[in-house]
Amino acid sequence: MQVKVVTRILEANDRMAEENRRRFAEAGLLAVNIMGTPGAGKTSLLERTIAALKPHLRIAVIEGDLMGSDDAERIGALDIPVVQINTGGACHLDANMISVVLADLPPLRELDLLIIENIGNLVCPAEFNLGEHMKIVVLSVTEGHDKPLKYPIMFQESKAMVLNKVDLLPYVDTDVEKVRRDALSLNPRLKLFEVSCRTGSGIDEWARWLRASRS
Amino acid sequence: MQVKVVTRILEANDRMAEENRRRFAEAGLLAVNIMGTPGAGKTSLLERTIAALKPHLRIAVIEGDLMGSDDAERIGALDIPVVQINTGGACHLDANMISVVLADLPPLRELDLLIIENIGNLVCPAEFNLGEHMKIVVLSVTEGHDKPLKYPIMFQESKAMVLNKVDLLPYVDTDVEKVRRDALSLNPRLKLFEVSCRTGSGIDEWARWLRASRS
Repeated sequence: MQVKVVTRILEANDRMAEENRRRFAEAGLLAVNIMGTPGAGKTSLLERTIAALKPHLRIAVIEGDLMGSDDAERIGALDIPVVQINTGGACHLDANMISVVLADLPPLRELDLLIIENIGNLVCPAEFNLGEHMKIVVLSVTEGHDKPLKYPIMFQESKAMVLNKVDLLPYVDTDVEKVRRDALSLNPRLKLFEVSCRTGSGIDEWARWLRASRS
Repeated sequence: MQVKVVTRILEANDRMAEENRRRFAEAGLLAVNIMGTPGAGKTSLLERTIAALKPHLRIAVIEGDLMGSDDAERIGALDIPVVQINTGGACHLDANMISVVLADLPPLRELDLLIIENIGNLVCPAEFNLGEHMKIVVLSVTEGHDKPLKYPIMFQESKAMVLNKVDLLPYVDTDVEKVRRDALSLNPRLKLFEVSCRTGSGIDEWARWLRASRS
């Protein structure tokens, strides 16, 4: 009974996601869904990515949070169109939420890249397609090396993993080689990046790849 | 329609949680629900807490994970009864899961403290009572200082916040005073602890408080 209900919700979400995907494709827009735990550094990665790509691409951002608009204010300070979704208590964004807020962004034809920052959560967001072209999982080295095997769906669904906070590697016991190995065992085509949003290391390579993904 | 379904699920959960609570009370057992993001250090906190309290209390552990049994093996190595719940994809433990696995633990009357480690998730677990006497939120200083206001339910529902990884404070930009202030603004009676599960600092105070909470 409970399972049936969930199935219907996911089916309805998938239909709306297809509609979003069609709109993004018509506009020639790359839509990216950024996921990861609270504190992995998703907003910091957005800030660095926008700084790197703003000279080349017309970017807009959708921020998802349970409540508050701190993240949207951080992104808005970069002079980028941004809209905040507050889910109340809900633990993930869904395709309908995205569809609704597209009306609050510039016309899609005037954009090249739409970055969606999902709710901080390594579980639920992976199951809800938003119509994005690709999902990206952000993981920080302070989270330990056991995360890919414990939260496999996120890593199976993602096109790339951005391993953040590598500046802290000297101070933690995380075995990065195990993170890489386990993530690739779940998803052999997963693209791996290692960055520090604090120092900026690795951002150029990530941003170049993201830019090239558009074409 | 969707809201009604969720309400019914929560009501059914609350009924089962009350039944668990009654069983814990009859047995004179303190049941604690440990929550936090993936990588906050919940399992490390359990290891430190068990080492500190094992001479004084008869302890058992329920481990919640999407899949795998790494955490249960870490706890089992401490020679403590432990049972692993694998939720498949589900993002939180619920009261029924707890009820089912109680049969795999020693008789409750032979235990003093039951520690339940929830799924790594700062959102959903806060909404599902398990019948525990108290919820504890574990937050690490590497997650930044904006988490209480962005994930308020978790902090409102918890009896104590354990701020972990304080050994990393020299290397991150987290404003711990803001974390404290925001957490207390959401829940003025929240008890705050600052620990490092890596060095062991602060563990004694936390363990003393937990032990005293039983009486």
